[in-house]
Amino acid sequence: MARVVVDVMLKSEILDPQGKAVQGAFGRLGFEGVASVRQGKRFEIELDSEATPEAVAEIERAAATLLANPVIEDFTVHVEAGV
Amino acid sequence: MARVVVDVMLKSEILDPQGKAVQGAFGRLGFEGVASVRQGKRFEIELDSEATPEAVAEIERAAATLLANPVIEDFTVHVEAGV
Repeated sequence: MARVVVDVMLKSEILDPQGKAVQGAFGRLGFEGVASVRQGKRFEIELDSEATPEAVAEIERAAATLLANPVIEDFTVHVEAGV
Repeated sequence: MARVVVDVMLKSEILDPQGKAVQGAFGRLGFEGVASVRQGKRFEIELDSEATPEAVAEIERAAATLLANPVIEDFTVHVEAGV
C-alpha cells in the first residue's frame, strides 16, 4: 500500500473565479494580508502495491488524461511518505 | 511574499462520491492497482508578508471557518518553501 497525491491547479494565466470569491470572503471576514487565493483539486490515490516508478508513471499518465485538463490545468504528482 | 497551502479533504468516515467516480473511471480506462481515490480541495494562498507564526495561525483560523467544514472535513495547513 502506498499513497500517491495528485494536485491539480488552474494554470496561472487562467482566471480562477472560485479563488477570487474565496479571496473576497477573506477580506469581508477580516482576514488581512492575503494577496491572492487560487483554488484547485487534490486527489489522494491509494495503491494496492508499493509506489514503484512504474506505478507512479501510470498515475502521471492518468493525471494528464483523467484528473487534469492539460489545456487549462497544471498538475503535480508526489508519493506521500509514511502511509 | 509567502505561499501557504491549505488542503481540505472529507473525513475518512464520510462517503466521497466524487472520489468513487474517479476510482471507477480509473478501472474503466485500464489503470490497474488503485485501491481507493479521495477527492478534496487545495487552496494556494499568497500572503503580502512573510509566513510568520501569526500569519499562519490566521490562515488556520480561516481554514477552520471559511475553507473547510469541520463537521465533515479535515484540513492541513503548510507553508510552501521557495515561493
